[in-house]
Amino acid sequence: MEDKVNLAEKLATFSERFSPKIVGRYNDDKLMVVKVHGEFTWHSHPETDDLFLVLDGRLTIRMRGRDGEGVGERAVELGPGELFVVPRGVEHCPFAAEEAHVLLIEPMGTVNTGDAGGPLTTEPEEI
Amino acid sequence: MEDKVNLAEKLATFSERFSPKIVGRYNDDKLMVVKVHGEFTWHSHPETDDLFLVLDGRLTIRMRGRDGEGVGERAVELGPGELFVVPRGVEHCPFAAEEAHVLLIEPMGTVNTGDAGGPLTTEPEEI
Repeated sequence: MEDKVNLAEKLATFSERFSPKIVGRYNDDKLMVVKVHGEFTWHSHPETDDLFLVLDGRLTIRMRGRDGEGVGERAVELGPGELFVVPRGVEHCPFAAEEAHVLLIEPMGTVNTGDAGGPLTTEPEEI
Repeated sequence: MEDKVNLAEKLATFSERFSPKIVGRYNDDKLMVVKVHGEFTWHSHPETDDLFLVLDGRLTIRMRGRDGEGVGERAVELGPGELFVVPRGVEHCPFAAEEAHVLLIEPMGTVNTGDAGGPLTTEPEEI
């Protein structure tokens, strides 16, 4: 049986940005913490929603409409204790002007950069 | 597209204990907030893990071993920013000496009292 996870303690063990770390599992999902600073890359996950819960700092999630919904751009800004679920297929780009700490939930096997790939693609390690 | 969810604001809209409220959805899961005070009921979810993230207060999750793992009883105590995933099939009983606020994630259709039923069984409403 697993132990409890203290999210702040896990976040204190690393400093890399945009490099999610797996801190637990729930059914077929991985629970991850990530440090965000600056702009990530525009991408989408055609197969899954993407759950963001801000633990510390402020996170902006920019989004572009899904196919058929137009291309209007919008954004949500999240502070501590605020969550947002990016619906599957919606192109999004996380951004934080100052470092923000975030809990992410995604199915096992989901790639952080989704369909975009590129240099920020990383395989999360377990901590 | 949905709006962001401020968990504290959602929690401020109701006072019932042991009555989870749905605040969002992520794939086939429901995201819920719940106020816990006192002891819930021993139960398990044979089909799913059960994710608890404490937002405020302290939550104790008592557990009994799964079939084949013996019947030893153990407990984890969670404070704010701490999460725990009760593995599927593990009998558990949440308890809080003073009111605690918790984010719960479970698949849609999961019954709060699992296989135990009883008077605390409730259908979560959306808020």
